[in-house]
Amino acid sequence: MTLDATHDPALRSWVPSAHAPGSNFPIQNLPLGAYHPTGGNVPRLGVAIGEMILDLAHAREVGLLDGLRIDVLEACGAESLTPLFATRRSGLTALRARVSALLREDTPEGARASQDRELLVPMSAVQMALPAVVGDYTDFYASIDHATNVGSMFRPDNPLLPNYKHVPIGYHGRASSLVVSGTAVRRPQGQTSAKPEGPPTFGPSARMDYELEVGAFVAGGNAMGTSIPLADAERYIAGVVLVNDWSARDLQSWEYQPLGPFLAKNFATTVSPWVVTLDALAPFRAPSRPRGADDPAVLPYLSDARDREAGGVAITLEVWIRTAQMRAEGELEVRLSRGDFRGMYWTLGQMLTHHASNGCNLRAGDLFASGTVSGPTKDSRGSMLELSWRGAEPIALPNGETRAFLTDGDEVILRGWCEREGAVRIGLGECRGIVLPAES
Amino acid sequence: MTLDATHDPALRSWVPSAHAPGSNFPIQNLPLGAYHPTGGNVPRLGVAIGEMILDLAHAREVGLLDGLRIDVLEACGAESLTPLFATRRSGLTALRARVSALLREDTPEGARASQDRELLVPMSAVQMALPAVVGDYTDFYASIDHATNVGSMFRPDNPLLPNYKHVPIGYHGRASSLVVSGTAVRRPQGQTSAKPEGPPTFGPSARMDYELEVGAFVAGGNAMGTSIPLADAERYIAGVVLVNDWSARDLQSWEYQPLGPFLAKNFATTVSPWVVTLDALAPFRAPSRPRGADDPAVLPYLSDARDREAGGVAITLEVWIRTAQMRAEGELEVRLSRGDFRGMYWTLGQMLTHHASNGCNLRAGDLFASGTVSGPTKDSRGSMLELSWRGAEPIALPNGETRAFLTDGDEVILRGWCEREGAVRIGLGECRGIVLPAES
Repeated sequence: MTLDATHDPALRSWVPSAHAPGSNFPIQNLPLGAYHPTGGNVPRLGVAIGEMILDLAHAREVGLLDGLRIDVLEACGAESLTPLFATRRSGLTALRARVSALLREDTPEGARASQDRELLVPMSAVQMALPAVVGDYTDFYASIDHATNVGSMFRPDNPLLPNYKHVPIGYHGRASSLVVSGTAVRRPQGQTSAKPEGPPTFGPSARMDYELEVGAFVAGGNAMGTSIPLADAERYIAGVVLVNDWSARDLQSWEYQPLGPFLAKNFATTVSPWVVTLDALAPFRAPSRPRGADDPAVLPYLSDARDREAGGVAITLEVWIRTAQMRAEGELEVRLSRGDFRGMYWTLGQMLTHHASNGCNLRAGDLFASGTVSGPTKDSRGSMLELSWRGAEPIALPNGETRAFLTDGDEVILRGWCEREGAVRIGLGECRGIVLPAES
Repeated sequence: MTLDATHDPALRSWVPSAHAPGSNFPIQNLPLGAYHPTGGNVPRLGVAIGEMILDLAHAREVGLLDGLRIDVLEACGAESLTPLFATRRSGLTALRARVSALLREDTPEGARASQDRELLVPMSAVQMALPAVVGDYTDFYASIDHATNVGSMFRPDNPLLPNYKHVPIGYHGRASSLVVSGTAVRRPQGQTSAKPEGPPTFGPSARMDYELEVGAFVAGGNAMGTSIPLADAERYIAGVVLVNDWSARDLQSWEYQPLGPFLAKNFATTVSPWVVTLDALAPFRAPSRPRGADDPAVLPYLSDARDREAGGVAITLEVWIRTAQMRAEGELEVRLSRGDFRGMYWTLGQMLTHHASNGCNLRAGDLFASGTVSGPTKDSRGSMLELSWRGAEPIALPNGETRAFLTDGDEVILRGWCEREGAVRIGLGECRGIVLPAES
């Protein structure tokens, strides 16, 4: 990843809130999203800057995007980011450069843009939409700490299966039930069984959980029957979001043999609204997780020098919770865990290359998520299943409540950001969801 | 299911080929599809009648569909069946009644339609398209004979898992790689391991297989967080197609633990082009598979008197193969197996109701497939894995060739039809695909 003018830490925007302390969206970030304009049903595309949204459709209409490729211009008027992702990384990179110039305080373009009273919309005045029309949603299992934790609960003598260190394990999730941050999620009903051999009963899940994940949207795509070399993989990744892969652990343990999770996962998956592009993440790239002396060599199709050097991304990730009682008593959310995306066993590039290695065609707007991001320490476990060790060690909240799994009314908030010396902090924003009681 | 005038065995069409011996598409069938018109890229919708296609967009344009609901009329001009499926069963039923009248030899509408030289297009002159834009594709595992066969190979002492007779087991497949009959399918590459503990190697699958399945398209849909009672389930099913769920058994056995099949399945899934509506299948409904004395009671949400009485569908299903050598020597395809869809442990209604039982939202155009349709006898096994018993008993073809799994150049042809005394035979047509060599 090369840094260009858009990453310069000295850049300042004429939008005051862009550089407020702790801002997720300084001019160095410029994430893409879709929002419902006030009084309108049809989503419009925008770029987050501070507490404002730059309206891409308006910018195009008034000529501020003139000179960009025609496919990029057309895509800026669409209702979801999928057409923009279809313009490939090159389209996104060109748009980023232009939007950066428009928002700078020291450019002629910025001076012109700052005079346009309709270019910016306050975030507080609009609802965000799901960023993209997602054709297929895939979920991986790329945290070895998560896989080891979960495996330890179910197979204490043999926590990690033999394929784990060779295969970026993944499965297909449900695209229809992807929702944007802020959407309430109903507790699922389903079959559960106290004993592994049954018999089951049907009713509301008693073990509803969240999973802290990072998702990546596909840019461009590959034709069916063709693969994507790892050296090219990041050309096919538009950017990342936070993902909460809601799970019903009791449904999962009863249903998942032999074909994997199904109803335990497909009732809802929440994503954060702002897609932080790979371009924006360039200053925060990091080596991929080093392999230990006991780890097998990675097969050649998943091995690449650049991926080893900079395939990781230094994203700090947190999970917070706010219960109904906390809301009633005016208390703010409390943190449950903090993790680091650098600890993943497989990189985003390796996941994508593996996904297409059999000729499976990926399409612009497809979403693939990392699987639960857990670290080696207890305070970095990215699901309640792990934090409470399958319910055996309930979590004590500061207000005296305890949680083994989620209770109706609990709001789960995921947060993520990147920061390091010499770069401006950028944020992924938030991914929120509140648990509603089961269907009656 | 009630029979109406469209099912009358005495009905005759003015289209001569409709009633040729062995016709799949008599006037009692009227399946829906999408085709590429000669010289055009944009698919158009049609109804199969004999060897012809009734062009629905043309029928609408010339007023032959006047009086139908506006949403049905608009959907007849779409590029895929998905908008028509969104008009719900009621829209499909109304369209069927009108098309039946247009194609009858004894009605004023039929007399008028038969004079329109542009209403019919010969099937032989066009390419078919994938019938619907599929949001999500789900694959079930509803044949207990298939599950027992596969389980026996991997777990001889415990072939059927404890959940099988309680849960309609399913998993999410890949929507992007759904292709229409006639599309060549490239052999996938992937990780395989001779030993369960590894290490794996990467290369072309040596155990490529087909799976004979029946798929159902969703009509209408349910809101996220709401379920669909079994008594209403068939209101949400538009119709059925043949599905070949291509599989790479060697990739599958290495990758599938713990999250299920992924690259072993998602490289391609082939569907037949003509969607035979549930209305057309009304004369062929049958009791669901009876439970034995040793079988557990079905949970109440999956239990319904009408489903027991008529939740099954009497579809005869066959698999045929034509190898490269057979083509070179001018030989026709030979049959590998014949099965009966009535033997499934779970009905289409039970699959759909289970799918939505956790509040998972189904959308018009979603496809769910039955899983491999196998019967209790060797000649009714719906995959080569089962026919060759994991390769241990290669299949002898009449020309002297043998097959343990598929060889490059093999063409697999699925066929299905319904017939009984007192009703006119209707066909599902064919689902074809030829195996191409792996990417080089």
